[in-house]
Amino acid sequence: MSVSIFDSFLTTSEMIAVFDDAAVVDAMFRFEAALARAQADEGMIPAAAASAIAGVCKAELYDIPALIHAGRRAGSLAIPLVKELTRTVALYDEEAARHVHWGSTSQDVIDSAMVLVTRDALQLLDDGLAELSGHLFKLAQDHLATPVLARTLMQPAQVTSFGFKLAGWLAPLVRARTALRAAAERALQLQLGGAVGTLSVMKDKGAPVATRVAALLGLRVADAAWHTQRDEWVRLGMEVAVLTGSLGKLATDLSLMAQGEIAELAEPSGNGRGGSSAMPHKRNPVSSMIALAASRRTPQHAAALLACMDQQHERGLGNWQAELAEWPPLFLSAHGALRALNDAFAGLNVDRERMLANIAALHGLVSAESASSYLAGAIGRPKAHALLEGLTRRVTSEGKPLDALLRETIEADPQLASQVDLHKLATLFDPAAAAEPARRLADSQLQALRSRMAELDATQPYKD
Amino acid sequence: MSVSIFDSFLTTSEMIAVFDDAAVVDAMFRFEAALARAQADEGMIPAAAASAIAGVCKAELYDIPALIHAGRRAGSLAIPLVKELTRTVALYDEEAARHVHWGSTSQDVIDSAMVLVTRDALQLLDDGLAELSGHLFKLAQDHLATPVLARTLMQPAQVTSFGFKLAGWLAPLVRARTALRAAAERALQLQLGGAVGTLSVMKDKGAPVATRVAALLGLRVADAAWHTQRDEWVRLGMEVAVLTGSLGKLATDLSLMAQGEIAELAEPSGNGRGGSSAMPHKRNPVSSMIALAASRRTPQHAAALLACMDQQHERGLGNWQAELAEWPPLFLSAHGALRALNDAFAGLNVDRERMLANIAALHGLVSAESASSYLAGAIGRPKAHALLEGLTRRVTSEGKPLDALLRETIEADPQLASQVDLHKLATLFDPAAAAEPARRLADSQLQALRSRMAELDATQPYKD
Amino acid sequence: MSVSIFDSFLTTSEMIAVFDDAAVVDAMFRFEAALARAQADEGMIPAAAASAIAGVCKAELYDIPALIHAGRRAGSLAIPLVKELTRTVALYDEEAARHVHWGSTSQDVIDSAMVLVTRDALQLLDDGLAELSGHLFKLAQDHLATPVLARTLMQPAQVTSFGFKLAGWLAPLVRARTALRAAAERALQLQLGGAVGTLSVMKDKGAPVATRVAALLGLRVADAAWHTQRDEWVRLGMEVAVLTGSLGKLATDLSLMAQGEIAELAEPSGNGRGGSSAMPHKRNPVSSMIALAASRRTPQHAAALLACMDQQHERGLGNWQAELAEWPPLFLSAHGALRALNDAFAGLNVDRERMLANIAALHGLVSAESASSYLAGAIGRPKAHALLEGLTRRVTSEGKPLDALLRETIEADPQLASQVDLHKLATLFDPAAAAEPARRLADSQLQALRSRMAELDATQPYKD
Amino acid sequence: MSVSIFDSFLTTSEMIAVFDDAAVVDAMFRFEAALARAQADEGMIPAAAASAIAGVCKAELYDIPALIHAGRRAGSLAIPLVKELTRTVALYDEEAARHVHWGSTSQDVIDSAMVLVTRDALQLLDDGLAELSGHLFKLAQDHLATPVLARTLMQPAQVTSFGFKLAGWLAPLVRARTALRAAAERALQLQLGGAVGTLSVMKDKGAPVATRVAALLGLRVADAAWHTQRDEWVRLGMEVAVLTGSLGKLATDLSLMAQGEIAELAEPSGNGRGGSSAMPHKRNPVSSMIALAASRRTPQHAAALLACMDQQHERGLGNWQAELAEWPPLFLSAHGALRALNDAFAGLNVDRERMLANIAALHGLVSAESASSYLAGAIGRPKAHALLEGLTRRVTSEGKPLDALLRETIEADPQLASQVDLHKLATLFDPAAAAEPARRLADSQLQALRSRMAELDATQPYKD
Repeated sequence: MSVSIFDSFLTTSEMIAVFDDAAVVDAMFRFEAALARAQADEGMIPAAAASAIAGVCKAELYDIPALIHAGRRAGSLAIPLVKELTRTVALYDEEAARHVHWGSTSQDVIDSAMVLVTRDALQLLDDGLAELSGHLFKLAQDHLATPVLARTLMQPAQVTSFGFKLAGWLAPLVRARTALRAAAERALQLQLGGAVGTLSVMKDKGAPVATRVAALLGLRVADAAWHTQRDEWVRLGMEVAVLTGSLGKLATDLSLMAQGEIAELAEPSGNGRGGSSAMPHKRNPVSSMIALAASRRTPQHAAALLACMDQQHERGLGNWQAELAEWPPLFLSAHGALRALNDAFAGLNVDRERMLANIAALHGLVSAESASSYLAGAIGRPKAHALLEGLTRRVTSEGKPLDALLRETIEADPQLASQVDLHKLATLFDPAAAAEPARRLADSQLQALRSRMAELDATQPYKD
Repeated sequence: MSVSIFDSFLTTSEMIAVFDDAAVVDAMFRFEAALARAQADEGMIPAAAASAIAGVCKAELYDIPALIHAGRRAGSLAIPLVKELTRTVALYDEEAARHVHWGSTSQDVIDSAMVLVTRDALQLLDDGLAELSGHLFKLAQDHLATPVLARTLMQPAQVTSFGFKLAGWLAPLVRARTALRAAAERALQLQLGGAVGTLSVMKDKGAPVATRVAALLGLRVADAAWHTQRDEWVRLGMEVAVLTGSLGKLATDLSLMAQGEIAELAEPSGNGRGGSSAMPHKRNPVSSMIALAASRRTPQHAAALLACMDQQHERGLGNWQAELAEWPPLFLSAHGALRALNDAFAGLNVDRERMLANIAALHGLVSAESASSYLAGAIGRPKAHALLEGLTRRVTSEGKPLDALLRETIEADPQLASQVDLHKLATLFDPAAAAEPARRLADSQLQALRSRMAELDATQPYKD
Repeated sequence: MSVSIFDSFLTTSEMIAVFDDAAVVDAMFRFEAALARAQADEGMIPAAAASAIAGVCKAELYDIPALIHAGRRAGSLAIPLVKELTRTVALYDEEAARHVHWGSTSQDVIDSAMVLVTRDALQLLDDGLAELSGHLFKLAQDHLATPVLARTLMQPAQVTSFGFKLAGWLAPLVRARTALRAAAERALQLQLGGAVGTLSVMKDKGAPVATRVAALLGLRVADAAWHTQRDEWVRLGMEVAVLTGSLGKLATDLSLMAQGEIAELAEPSGNGRGGSSAMPHKRNPVSSMIALAASRRTPQHAAALLACMDQQHERGLGNWQAELAEWPPLFLSAHGALRALNDAFAGLNVDRERMLANIAALHGLVSAESASSYLAGAIGRPKAHALLEGLTRRVTSEGKPLDALLRETIEADPQLASQVDLHKLATLFDPAAAAEPARRLADSQLQALRSRMAELDATQPYKD
Repeated sequence: MSVSIFDSFLTTSEMIAVFDDAAVVDAMFRFEAALARAQADEGMIPAAAASAIAGVCKAELYDIPALIHAGRRAGSLAIPLVKELTRTVALYDEEAARHVHWGSTSQDVIDSAMVLVTRDALQLLDDGLAELSGHLFKLAQDHLATPVLARTLMQPAQVTSFGFKLAGWLAPLVRARTALRAAAERALQLQLGGAVGTLSVMKDKGAPVATRVAALLGLRVADAAWHTQRDEWVRLGMEVAVLTGSLGKLATDLSLMAQGEIAELAEPSGNGRGGSSAMPHKRNPVSSMIALAASRRTPQHAAALLACMDQQHERGLGNWQAELAEWPPLFLSAHGALRALNDAFAGLNVDRERMLANIAALHGLVSAESASSYLAGAIGRPKAHALLEGLTRRVTSEGKPLDALLRETIEADPQLASQVDLHKLATLFDPAAAAEPARRLADSQLQALRSRMAELDATQPYKD
């Protein structure tokens, strides 16, 4: 594997394959082949030369570890690759060998190769997002009205609906998918500028060649060589980082709700998943774990991209090379997190009873604000406030529910009893009623999200 | 000043003012006033109460340091502010005091206030970008064809035009201005969700009140409360970071070209700017310094925003509060860098002679590739290659220009002399001719950028 | 205040004062005064000149905002300060004015000033660590044997003692105090190198002057000017960051244990602390919040210091200035976190009953490993394993405690009953017995920590 | 290779091997074997079982990719490893299989394995530092007095000696080697705590077993399990980061001095190193490139470690796993940078003539401060100042050296001529004389560094 053991543990085989040595080298050869073909089509080089070059632009013909080794010495992976390609072409056609990599520069081939493999990486993220959105959408429909505690500052706050929480997790995923596509539309562009970005060797053929190469590779033609202007590329990286941030938020909530003492949610178990031989009660949230690891690492990888933007003059020294190395980890983490959460949500256990029990354990105090608001209308704010303050204290000291204490108190006081609608008051303590505003909001949010998802599903932007 | 001494040194008074304690508190009061007015308009509270509340929503009436002090204890700046506002309203109208902050939560007022001051911050960045783009555009026109060395991996590479370099610096600024506006359009949205994001206290008036408050403040209505879904907000922050990255790239190039030994550019001097009493020859690039400092710091501040995205449940513990504190530095740095570069480019010294001299100092070697290409056509590649290899060595050992050695050699060999067009060969060593491809590209790029700038100048997205 | 509103919220007034504009400027003047005195003592300048200079080296005589403003233009805060100092000296003694700042450079005075104020900052951290260690030590003694759940991967795991957890929190604080002192011993060194680090202007007086200045300021004499070799300084910053990391770990555990559904710990409340008017049951963990915010921000500030180490040649352009601005936030965050946790632990509520109840809620499953181990010895591993596997399933399905099920099963089977010591078995399910290994370890750890604390308390390394 | 293609490009094969999958798995097996042996020696398990276990603790017996794959599902690499080990032991000795991993936990084996491979990584860094220090030391001796420009804020400042610059680069390397050893002495400690850090399963044998395991592996016995207290481990990581920062400073200076227009230094070339086929004059500083890439990436990796310190309760969820993955990159980058700089300094080209030429190009202005100081003594400060101010302007306008202008002026004015010692004045403009203070300082610094290096060379702390 072309990532280290603990990286591997936190990502997926598919994303490892996207950025694998062979895949990157293959993309470099695709660039060289397309360049030769485009130049032949523009009459710059003989068609036969282009065929000869393209014919050996196949990663499997080359000793990739040897290329990497030689690249270290040369200061660029492209130098030995072009050299070996030239040597190989010359075995068949010496004349053609003179046309290899014509008018291009190391950074053209490397950057363009990264663009090509990144498109594949984006496809994986898009697929993963579609799947996860689907899981969340389905759960949200099922639990639109399921009452659950909302918590603020890590303390129980009020009653909401689980569907509302799910819609809250879903919306940023839909936005991320949209934003990634928009950023990719700009960033998936050909790099082709020649030694210093001016394509001077190609004379007036520079622009038409670039147009043809871009078309052959399915990439956008750049406004200008972006050798040392990395803003559009970095913006794409930032979008991946924001996505991972949203996944981290989701995983944080999941891990908190899955704690043994809260137990409202549980990741699926069985078949060696998250178990512990010594501790039979354990059900480790291994999906959350992977997504949380991703969200811890990603801000730093994003910072590294930003820190590498100050690329000197027409080719960076150190910063460009660092950027190349910091790019794949963003995608490896994001896809690891997506896959993990898809595993978790595909078989998520939702414990409605426990959600209700956790609400009940607060003895009605989560409804104190609603009760206070209703009573203020009925008996005036000062009296309402005094009444609730006293009862609230008794809830804590006696461990009796606030609604019961309220009912007792009101029933024992004829004046109060005449002013207060006990039935109405009771509904304020009813979790289902308390969850109703959340249900309504979630319903309308899900409708909008469903439309947006349908639009996204209808197009396939990452196919070349 | 509300930033520390070394922060202050690296930013501008205007941006300090935007995020000043009083400005933030003032924006909080604007939120409270708008909320009251909106609720009155929806019939939720009496119009008189709204007037009473709005009447004392004025930062200058309050002891801001005391609010901050009390906020530390309470765990939120909004708690003492609402308390003091309530107390102040009650001095005039006890009934109205009951309606202060009704149905809202601490995070609503704080986030909305941050949105409001951020809009002002974006206006400053937009203005700064417009100004800097103008300077660069003008210089690019003046130097469209000025030959200058392009440098790769911090070594002289080939000849380009200074106008082309300027267009390269300009394009990301125009993109940044565009991207900031697009991100702002999403992110400058009202925060209004109540305790747990459901606006439950306002019952069915939640949505209409939100619409009215947003209209009063000139903000977008959010799709949902974004208390713990920070993606759109963070995206805006990332755009500022990308901008600062592009400014850092510009400052890097400027500082390299301004080195005493290169001396192609110089920041303006005089009037205490960048001088040194002990060293009369020194002309310190203080604008570059500030922009470089910004680009060193900003990646980490961006990372901090990303690292704070995992906000728990319905209100984050620690991460939201950290995000609030990490937000202004992004803008302080970006505006400091913009201002500094505007100062530098408003009076930039461009030394065309030195640019030519630096090209000449390479003894024609920068044109070796072009010469080789021409000679290959004239005398065949093997002979051309052998010829140049030998002469190139002599350039280094004898310190004679390659073009002179070539002419001598060709003139001394009748066969060569008959095959080679010496005049044509000479033009390959002419810096102006070598800069021509760059000039052409720059010309077309500038045309496109000019259109885009005109579009941007025609709208004012940050006025409320 | 010289920090922004949301920074202020997360730190202390004392640490703000340490890095306040006036404090930094005052330290710069202390350097200038010491330099003049040292040069007079070495006969380089007249004693009267030194007195004249030292006499006006008083921050209160100068317009600090004007200095900052002029510093922006000059590119260094020291330039206007030295200019104003020279002007002021000249008012009284023109001759003396010629000796101001003699042979020194801007970075000498600024770096040395930062060292001086940092020593004060370290004193605050040392005091805060001593206090917090004391609180933890006391609690650990009180709860040495208190059973509490240990949790792994955010799931209940086994029984430990709360004293053991406290010892775990305490040890890194003692290590941090030790490590900070060791790093400070290297890093609190005078900066004095003159324009390019060679003190050339002072001729052979350079070394003796440096020795005298260092003695006057109570600082170490550096092995060499460290204008652009920042390793020892950055190491000190890293120690602060590691400390904040350990505080973040503590705050994480505290916030998790204080969740309403776990409720084993609670931060003190009352007097406006962490309350919520709308939600009477809420008791927000505001101390945890501040420490968590610090631990989110600090890694990035630490990274910024590291990112600024590549200072060019003999004085950095941008990176040194960025480092200066990124330095105070490390201390502001650390002290904010320390103060917050001291507040929390000074009045921490520890709920032993709830700790036991949380153990009991697991129905004995946390003891399954111990029971399995004991039974393997008594009845053989295969039989023991089979028995427990079956009962464990019944615990989950029937909700009965494992120990009760075990006793029933054994009593119902005469053969088993004869092989198993039921009393012994019962102790395995006794939380107090289960906590015993933790208690023993904690006891010995605390003994070692107590000695180390006593050693630390016996010296005062930060007094000048 | 177990790192991605662009990571590989920036590091060394040796360091890749240290953290290779097989090496980490092998270290895990070494832990398991040592644990079994220690427990046998303490009489906890039969000696035969320990032999049976140790006999199959060989990485080459296992399918490592399959272990990694299963580890993803289980949530820990140790779970499938222990399972496969147990299964393998059972093939030979079923009884022994029961004693595998006895009383230990996943994190014990993984953390201890990381400690073991990290010791090897530190050996590589120590060797690399010794070699680089040797190169620098030798160059510093050779160039103790070689005059070269000192530069501040990226502008020529004054004359120093190249030996002084080299001593400046050398000192932090010697400090880093010292500091790494000190941090390693604390951090290279056994992890052995069992499920929740209390070693409860081992009863009173916990401590003696830990002592024996540590001895077998050559590690320190920890004061307590450090499952979630990572401070000592992170401190070691921070030391690596500080080292890389110092290497980045060195590489920055090297790359600046190697610019074509400055050309005082050049990395060795030839044999495919840093060449460019198209541009024969190019000599790319590929060693600087690698070291600069390392110094761009490392601050973020360091930040990631700090950001992972908040590990929950007794085992972290996500943060521990992220830390594991972020650990090797620190060492990969540092060793890549060290190797690259060793390559560069083993064959560094130092151009003394160019150093002098660059000084001369400043027309004596770098000596203006010294001249002013001398003349003030001879003719009084006001006259001296006026004289130099006028001549300095003429230097710039006429391009004549300041010393020549001074001599002319003085010779033309009999009064001046009588007051000024022209010979003395001339020496102030002599680069060798100007470099003398730097030479003296460098000489004494190198003496101290030589002693320290000898001490370091005399011990081998990383041998087990």
